[in-house]
Amino acid sequence: MSRPLRLGIAGLGTVGAGVVRIVQRHAALLSARIGREVTIRAVSARSQDKDRGLRIGDYDWVEDPVALAIRDDIDVFVELIGGAEGVARAAVEAAIRAGKDVVTANKALLATHGQALAEAAEAEGVCLRFEAAVAGGIPVIKVLTEGLAGNEINRVMGVMNGTCNFILTRMQDAGLDYRTVFAEAEALGFLEADPTLDVGGIDAGHKLAILAAIAFGTRVDFGAMEIEGIERITIEDIQQAADMGYRIKLLGVAQKTGRGLETRTSPCLVPMDSALGQLENATNMVVLEGDAVGQIALRGAGAGEGPTASAVMSDIVDIGRGIRVPTFGKPAVELTHARAANASSPASYYLRMALEDRPGALAKIAAVLGDSGISIDRMRQYGHTDPTAPVLIVTHKATKTALDQAIAAMASTGVLASEPVAIRIEET
Amino acid sequence: MSRPLRLGIAGLGTVGAGVVRIVQRHAALLSARIGREVTIRAVSARSQDKDRGLRIGDYDWVEDPVALAIRDDIDVFVELIGGAEGVARAAVEAAIRAGKDVVTANKALLATHGQALAEAAEAEGVCLRFEAAVAGGIPVIKVLTEGLAGNEINRVMGVMNGTCNFILTRMQDAGLDYRTVFAEAEALGFLEADPTLDVGGIDAGHKLAILAAIAFGTRVDFGAMEIEGIERITIEDIQQAADMGYRIKLLGVAQKTGRGLETRTSPCLVPMDSALGQLENATNMVVLEGDAVGQIALRGAGAGEGPTASAVMSDIVDIGRGIRVPTFGKPAVELTHARAANASSPASYYLRMALEDRPGALAKIAAVLGDSGISIDRMRQYGHTDPTAPVLIVTHKATKTALDQAIAAMASTGVLASEPVAIRIEET
Repeated sequence: MSRPLRLGIAGLGTVGAGVVRIVQRHAALLSARIGREVTIRAVSARSQDKDRGLRIGDYDWVEDPVALAIRDDIDVFVELIGGAEGVARAAVEAAIRAGKDVVTANKALLATHGQALAEAAEAEGVCLRFEAAVAGGIPVIKVLTEGLAGNEINRVMGVMNGTCNFILTRMQDAGLDYRTVFAEAEALGFLEADPTLDVGGIDAGHKLAILAAIAFGTRVDFGAMEIEGIERITIEDIQQAADMGYRIKLLGVAQKTGRGLETRTSPCLVPMDSALGQLENATNMVVLEGDAVGQIALRGAGAGEGPTASAVMSDIVDIGRGIRVPTFGKPAVELTHARAANASSPASYYLRMALEDRPGALAKIAAVLGDSGISIDRMRQYGHTDPTAPVLIVTHKATKTALDQAIAAMASTGVLASEPVAIRIEET
Repeated sequence: MSRPLRLGIAGLGTVGAGVVRIVQRHAALLSARIGREVTIRAVSARSQDKDRGLRIGDYDWVEDPVALAIRDDIDVFVELIGGAEGVARAAVEAAIRAGKDVVTANKALLATHGQALAEAAEAEGVCLRFEAAVAGGIPVIKVLTEGLAGNEINRVMGVMNGTCNFILTRMQDAGLDYRTVFAEAEALGFLEADPTLDVGGIDAGHKLAILAAIAFGTRVDFGAMEIEGIERITIEDIQQAADMGYRIKLLGVAQKTGRGLETRTSPCLVPMDSALGQLENATNMVVLEGDAVGQIALRGAGAGEGPTASAVMSDIVDIGRGIRVPTFGKPAVELTHARAANASSPASYYLRMALEDRPGALAKIAAVLGDSGISIDRMRQYGHTDPTAPVLIVTHKATKTALDQAIAAMASTGVLASEPVAIRIEET
């Protein structure tokens, strides 16, 4: 048996504590699987005294994560601090320079500095691994980078922020409005310190940017992504979408189009009987489409101590086994700059609006859509007691440009009693 | 860039042709991902002249797969012949002895001789890889062996024979009986030459035996598995199960119990709104449960040229990248003999029977169940025109022993008009 694989772990929050627990609990299992022992040499965290329900006295305590990262007696630096800048970034950079393999769960860091870090790691001949950065316990990085390596990938899609999915399914199930459920999620501790990261779609966007780089062999380009969060989703939309057979999900979608690489994170309608439509609470799902394999769907917990620590451990086991794959599936210097698609691909849209209740109102709206080249798949006008009539329209496939034009033209008909809400319907 | 990875491919049926097509179509993509070129040096198949829609003139043609397997100019022997014995086995054994890495899609070979082959491969220091042997394009071997390597696995479960799932969903959707749909499947070419491999549950059993070895660190033990096929499933059961909120699926389940390792492949009821319950047609799904990760579900095509070739290619790419993991996740000589559980774990059961239509009949059946310690969750007696009354019972959890005793005792009540049908309800 080879000499032990020695870890230095920075960050002992939920995930870090979970990793320590697995190393302690499964020492024999890990040794048998890796062919060498896994040991923790040193740890670093904000507070040495906090009760984590863990025995950490056997490990050296290091105040400075950067000092931990470069210690001579560690082989792998495990970064579980978080954040795209600051000490997390400094420690990862230092570890790479010191020739250490790095395992991180830090999606913001990868989405922001992934290219530079991957180039640095590959120049030093070390691994930079980040299974836990995307979709928690679901081993989607491995599936995409290795399991589907014989495929040209056409589309990557998924629900990758459990908090948003919790909020949307809770609104749906309880008939509650966004503000109420947001407050519930906050009280349950489901939200990041800056909740915009979750509900603004940024966290899901970080994850999609990482997946897109691997899928398409392109440089991580978080800046090129269209991002919209769930803040404007109303209980009315959730209920009306359900009435038409749909659920609203915060979907990340990356796909190749004739106009370039389309990457967007936004609320979308999906059929309620589809696997994505049925995804409840904080569960994540990633759908991968390859030219040979067709569609593969992966479902699991997207967050939490156990699932995230499971993903971190799979990276550690890979390093222990000597598995070395380029950070994003091919050498970082060969990753191309993707041309960003200048508009999203055509789609069906859900349109909700209120019309003045007078003869010809609906006809005017239908005419505007027709003039913009948008044909109507289904339309419903609901009974009402107030002086405006709620109308729902599901269009056939249309471009976003045509849709925006139609919505602008609707304003000048004089029959709109509210700004129309438009939500993309994604094909699953 | 290193020297090319040279393949010898034996078997140019659907899967073999698919692998050749990917190597030809994606030469540049594969080189970029592996860091070296993939080339096919030699092929072998039954007929050299068959039109496969492929250019194979550039490859040496070898009549004897065993001769192909040991050629000096190949690095990887790709066995796509099939069958647990005969030339497939001989060629794989020869390749291992000759120091070649081996990739195979042969579940029967692995389920029957996996232990000996793994020991031989590990003694020679070569890889034996078989992603395509289980669940087609779903990279479940990789997910289980590597992606969840930090977990103690508690249960592996899945629908892993597409033909059976096609037959069951077609019966359900069209209201057709088993014989009719079996004939349809045969006409569509969905069945193996020996259809018992499919409908008898043997193919699904082979796959489960392989997964169980990886999941639990035990020797492949196909002989210890309880296997029951779908031949006895009637359209009545499918419809009545639906009426109670269930679908019937051919499920493979492997789990640790206090009484040993339980491995079985059998028709089971699952909730119709569960992911397994909603699995349609030939699609496969594997559910993996680990102590840290919780439940992970993987869905995709379980067969067909593209998906299976995708899995074969992922093994080839891994070998090209230098990824070397023990065949079943830990050294073969360390795999333990599992103690087979002597009975399946307690479960709820679905019971369908016809009773003589006379006072007290139902009471007698209920009394028998009560005497056997089995409590009733739900019971329905249906309206009827013939002189017997159809009755459905869903029990609370009971052991198979208690259930068998109850069914035996029902016979002596004199009120049964038909042999009761009992089907396990699996928790998803």
